[in-house]
Amino acid sequence: MGGMTNDVRAVEWTGDGLRLLDQTVLPGRVEYLDVRDVDTLVDAIRRLVVRGAPALGVAGAFGVAVALLQAEREGWDRARRNAAIGRIREARPTAVNLAAGVDRVLPLAIEGAAAVAAGAQELLDEDVRGNRAIGAFGADWILARTGDRPLRVLTHCNAGALATAGWGTALGVVRELHARGRIELVYADETRPLLQGARLTAWELEQAGIPYVVQADAAAASTIMRGLADVAVIGADRVAANGDTANKIGSLGVALACEAAGIPLVVAAPWSTVDLAVPDGDNIPIEERPAEEILGWGGVKTAPAGAAAFNPAFDVTPARLVTALVTETGVLEVSAGVTPGRSDRPS
Amino acid sequence: MGGMTNDVRAVEWTGDGLRLLDQTVLPGRVEYLDVRDVDTLVDAIRRLVVRGAPALGVAGAFGVAVALLQAEREGWDRARRNAAIGRIREARPTAVNLAAGVDRVLPLAIEGAAAVAAGAQELLDEDVRGNRAIGAFGADWILARTGDRPLRVLTHCNAGALATAGWGTALGVVRELHARGRIELVYADETRPLLQGARLTAWELEQAGIPYVVQADAAAASTIMRGLADVAVIGADRVAANGDTANKIGSLGVALACEAAGIPLVVAAPWSTVDLAVPDGDNIPIEERPAEEILGWGGVKTAPAGAAAFNPAFDVTPARLVTALVTETGVLEVSAGVTPGRSDRPS
Repeated sequence: MGGMTNDVRAVEWTGDGLRLLDQTVLPGRVEYLDVRDVDTLVDAIRRLVVRGAPALGVAGAFGVAVALLQAEREGWDRARRNAAIGRIREARPTAVNLAAGVDRVLPLAIEGAAAVAAGAQELLDEDVRGNRAIGAFGADWILARTGDRPLRVLTHCNAGALATAGWGTALGVVRELHARGRIELVYADETRPLLQGARLTAWELEQAGIPYVVQADAAAASTIMRGLADVAVIGADRVAANGDTANKIGSLGVALACEAAGIPLVVAAPWSTVDLAVPDGDNIPIEERPAEEILGWGGVKTAPAGAAAFNPAFDVTPARLVTALVTETGVLEVSAGVTPGRSDRPS
Repeated sequence: MGGMTNDVRAVEWTGDGLRLLDQTVLPGRVEYLDVRDVDTLVDAIRRLVVRGAPALGVAGAFGVAVALLQAEREGWDRARRNAAIGRIREARPTAVNLAAGVDRVLPLAIEGAAAVAAGAQELLDEDVRGNRAIGAFGADWILARTGDRPLRVLTHCNAGALATAGWGTALGVVRELHARGRIELVYADETRPLLQGARLTAWELEQAGIPYVVQADAAAASTIMRGLADVAVIGADRVAANGDTANKIGSLGVALACEAAGIPLVVAAPWSTVDLAVPDGDNIPIEERPAEEILGWGGVKTAPAGAAAFNPAFDVTPARLVTALVTETGVLEVSAGVTPGRSDRPS
């Protein structure tokens, strides 16, 4: 892996516990949270210390090892241990990866925490390799359609190294395009309420030396309709069998603008994000988060004292608006009718 | 005028100067800025102490009186006085109302500051009467199309009493619907970067006892596409002859979602917002505001130190997405082809 990957380790196993880069305090501070018990992990997942579908998968897998070590240390019975693992599995509802990461290493639990941690590490390594493949497939697909001009890419939220085990999915495509000398500018939506774009995507782009501007989420439609972006590339938290895609709130607005402007919307995500058990977007659970995230920022209340808020964390982009779904196994042209559930899984 | 109108006076003449309700510190504090010189006024307009197209028109008109009084007090020659008036006129570029307000009272300048102030007061009174008419026309039009059900209304930015001389344009329609017992819930987009929705619209709705929730701008498309809103009602900063509408950044995204969901997008604005000299949206100047508005929050920097930002304050919604343009003179069904420049002005 290249230097850029090693600079950002959102999730890491230290041998006896899980180390998370605390994404709630970036870019102001680079701090790590050492996780040795399930309560701390569940709280960290809920507070978005670690976030992003693939990173949640890896954190969930290592979380099983954390639970086993804690169970041993504190003499839990099997029921208590399983309940704790269940709490990790369900700490956030929308991304399929969290539960999938837990489920993947569960068969190793009988062999003990070290085996589970090794299984989780395998998942982490696979994720980075997968992201490299996503970057290459995505860049190839985009460049085949945009010709020789330097590209202006719009992205929403953070689907970068911080959201994954390293390199990134949507930002992996951007990194790859940059490595090929093809990025003119990245428009990074700030991504309210938690500003993953202004804080995390901007930080990653800054570190990687990729030119970018931060913009209000509300500017995305206009930037696209004014012809200032050639392509939008976003991640996904869950993709249904028909290609409907749940991603950070605001993605749907980006998708509608791409359709209106006639530019491609590229969804970049590991195949593990595809949930073939879910037929369509109506069946993807959408997490509602606390009102306080909307009513203020950084402890400063901006709305009136009595204000209520509506705070869905994700929205669903219908398959007809997803031009390409890029996974580590290849590209599905979803709006053209090639959906995960209808096609064979590409190999 | 009813009690609610009198509660909110964004712009007021005190006899010897202009009093502005400082919208930069709402809802935390209710403070007034007394303006007796042109520099203070221009700065107040730029900092959005006073904002909203109709309120800017009234502030501009009173501003001419401020300039005349200052010119007299400080012995300015005609050139200096005219330059000062020109600076007020051009303090912000997008709303046509500011320049129009200045221009309207200029013929009275020869009669002195008192006559100008009286002319500005007439504009203010007309604006409130006009808003009442907009509210009634808008409510009639919406109710004729939505039947008997309680309405969920989405709005963006603040086009309320604070943005006008009183009552409001988009919020005037909401107030009227509420007076008729027809509002179930208002979705108020927070409206980054300056949070006119979370701060000002929420404050007005709170004061008026109208049920509402604040949501991230990025949630608007999803709220609309999920069928949670029956109609979107927004204001306008400038409407071109063909019906293209400049309004706060994010309005275009709301419009695209309304089209996709098949609900009406209602633009409520005084006829003075229509600029028949501008053929279409491509010819409306779009103000770019300082990067700091995007890169931080309440004085706290959120983006990385080196970050750049793209901060257009407005976007242009093409006429085909504007279902109805409601002015004090009636309703133009713009997306159906009835545009300000093509139709006779309704009487």
